[in-house]
Amino acid sequence: MSEWNALSRTELTQLLEESSSAYEKMKKLDLKLDLSRGKPSPDVLDLSNAYLNPPNTNTTEDGTDIRNYGAPTGLPECKRLFSELLDIPPAQIFIGGNASLQLMYDTFAMLYLFGLPEGTPWCKEDKIKVLCPCPGYDRHFNLAADFGAELVVVPMTEDGPDMDIVEQLVASDPSIKAMWNVPLYSNPQGIVYSNETVRRLAKMKTAAPDFKLLWDNAYGVHHIWKAYQIENIFRLTEEAGNPERVLYFFSTSKILFPGGGIGLVAAGPATIKSIATHMSKQTIGYNKIPQLKTVELFQNAEGIHKHMQKIADLLRPKFEIVLNALEKEFSENGLLSWETPKGGYFVGVETMDGCAKRTVALAKEAGAVLTDAGATYPHKNDPRDSSIRIAPTYPSLSELQQTMDLFCICVKIAALEKLLEK
Amino acid sequence: MSEWNALSRTELTQLLEESSSAYEKMKKLDLKLDLSRGKPSPDVLDLSNAYLNPPNTNTTEDGTDIRNYGAPTGLPECKRLFSELLDIPPAQIFIGGNASLQLMYDTFAMLYLFGLPEGTPWCKEDKIKVLCPCPGYDRHFNLAADFGAELVVVPMTEDGPDMDIVEQLVASDPSIKAMWNVPLYSNPQGIVYSNETVRRLAKMKTAAPDFKLLWDNAYGVHHIWKAYQIENIFRLTEEAGNPERVLYFFSTSKILFPGGGIGLVAAGPATIKSIATHMSKQTIGYNKIPQLKTVELFQNAEGIHKHMQKIADLLRPKFEIVLNALEKEFSENGLLSWETPKGGYFVGVETMDGCAKRTVALAKEAGAVLTDAGATYPHKNDPRDSSIRIAPTYPSLSELQQTMDLFCICVKIAALEKLLEK
Repeated sequence: MSEWNALSRTELTQLLEESSSAYEKMKKLDLKLDLSRGKPSPDVLDLSNAYLNPPNTNTTEDGTDIRNYGAPTGLPECKRLFSELLDIPPAQIFIGGNASLQLMYDTFAMLYLFGLPEGTPWCKEDKIKVLCPCPGYDRHFNLAADFGAELVVVPMTEDGPDMDIVEQLVASDPSIKAMWNVPLYSNPQGIVYSNETVRRLAKMKTAAPDFKLLWDNAYGVHHIWKAYQIENIFRLTEEAGNPERVLYFFSTSKILFPGGGIGLVAAGPATIKSIATHMSKQTIGYNKIPQLKTVELFQNAEGIHKHMQKIADLLRPKFEIVLNALEKEFSENGLLSWETPKGGYFVGVETMDGCAKRTVALAKEAGAVLTDAGATYPHKNDPRDSSIRIAPTYPSLSELQQTMDLFCICVKIAALEKLLEK
Repeated sequence: MSEWNALSRTELTQLLEESSSAYEKMKKLDLKLDLSRGKPSPDVLDLSNAYLNPPNTNTTEDGTDIRNYGAPTGLPECKRLFSELLDIPPAQIFIGGNASLQLMYDTFAMLYLFGLPEGTPWCKEDKIKVLCPCPGYDRHFNLAADFGAELVVVPMTEDGPDMDIVEQLVASDPSIKAMWNVPLYSNPQGIVYSNETVRRLAKMKTAAPDFKLLWDNAYGVHHIWKAYQIENIFRLTEEAGNPERVLYFFSTSKILFPGGGIGLVAAGPATIKSIATHMSKQTIGYNKIPQLKTVELFQNAEGIHKHMQKIADLLRPKFEIVLNALEKEFSENGLLSWETPKGGYFVGVETMDGCAKRTVALAKEAGAVLTDAGATYPHKNDPRDSSIRIAPTYPSLSELQQTMDLFCICVKIAALEKLLEK
């Protein structure tokens, strides 16, 4: 099959009729499928049901009763567990509630209101800008937008954000205060930042002295085929003389339960102290019961890795269904392109220009909810209307196969309609 | 025994020698006692150990899997439980994490950054002031101070804050944006706002159109002897045409576990919508597991009241030890005055002017940690150096008796030293 944009109107019309007929058949199945959010499926959640059990003890190694007040920055044994897992000193870790997004919001608010470590609050600036590698994660964008930040799109490459552009921007514009990053298995493309990218981010010159890398390592242990690794950002920023550049986030939302895991923020020595000080005004201490239960369940980093292998075994066939469907339908006709994800939770695809919204609308009409087209760009404004995020983790294998069958038909219809417009 | 300030120097010196001798004896006991914070004791926590068990089901009444994402404003059954308990419509309730303090901080931050409901952010004002009835709760003061608010002291009366002063201040000064309140069993005096006080707060004219009552009903069901009640602040503010005046906070920190309960914020119809919108940028949703377990454990408001009676049965003897000790030692000599608390978690006392810091220091030197003197005033600045908060809930009965013996000696020594200075 050759590129479809070389076909005649008659051929295109014929193909559109075939796809439309297949679409009508699928509509009659009255499907109710959801590929919109990165949610674990019930069988993945079941792997963590032991986490619902009571802890073996109520008392931590330093004598704190987890039921009572105390340990406002987190339990020592819990910090040690994540210190081993993430290779960050325990003193640079603050354990929060169930959502790392909340820690991102809170630390962004601290930067905005007070500066971190104590410095010039961003709210005193006429304007602040935040770099957003795209396609990226909608909740990152919405968070920064809530503070009135201007969101500056930076294109992604297979090695991470386009560093030539990033370096040029941050060096010349002091209103660029921060940059979002999902360095390992980016959302949605599953890209792994190259070591070169990470090193350049660590050492690049920034016009803003208080520039921050917002380092959301959401998928840091969420391997699917192979365990990719990136260089330690704290070590690199420290070596480059920028020890306070990073705000690092991690959570067990997709290790244990999205509805009841724990999140953490890690930062340079001065910044983490400043975070703990502001947090002491904000809470007497986060829920310690999930912290102790996490330690009891996993014991050490190896325990987490073993658990993640079980999750990977359940997710791998889902990724393969998606990738096989895309490969089968779109390897040669030019209607869809995609980056094969190296791991994580999503597959990012690009339709022909101007076809993403129509594709998602068609799928929705036939009973399959996808992430809104454009959601991978700030303010849902994808200038080419081409980026779609596929979240394959929640449906069962058969539902996913059905959804991908439908999705491929929708991509074709939207593309054929576009080609016939010419 | 008559008022000691009428005694001769010789009599005072004699009394000081007696007290000092008793003090030295207690020092030798090498006590390690803590009356500093309002922490439940292990036997009170044990009443809630069933809360550590797994929930009976993972699925809520609307089909949400509590382990997964969803229900960002809280589980419907959990809102209903607290709606019944607090007489607030479920739609005006947002369930958060384990600390209501965090919800206070977050909503204060929303007021500061954005306005609530969408209005003029307080950060755009040259200055904001917050009324602080004193003696009051240090964490309330510290929270507002974190945002640079000027903290304005208002004296407490046995009916709540002095309303003549409050009304005059809020009517004349538009920079007064908010007022802290612990309306039932105030911290530390256990005062119950009179219905007249509550009504005046609901309807008073404020120069700031966006003035907020920060209504921390922390001890709303924490009766000790009798179940006091106050009028429904939402009903009163609505009737007075101020439906968005209240930010209402509640938590199960001292019903279940301080380290793992749930907090909530309630507000007027427009404000609660605005809170939910900003929260949707801040978190995908709070931990739902404690929410469902709370509902399963208590079923309804009556279940909570029954549980609180068990807690009251354990706390009542502690309050009686404190009050009996104070009555025995200070009913006639004028060295200490106190408000008999109607319920709650604390006893607030007033030493002679200039004696609180010395009293607390003496107690500490002999092994009993009290809340820092002055902590009941903004910036720990008690102008008369007389207010001390006694937190009797954590120690055992025998430890508490010992601590009170020591405390009374320390009060006497500090007072006698002061009288001898003259």
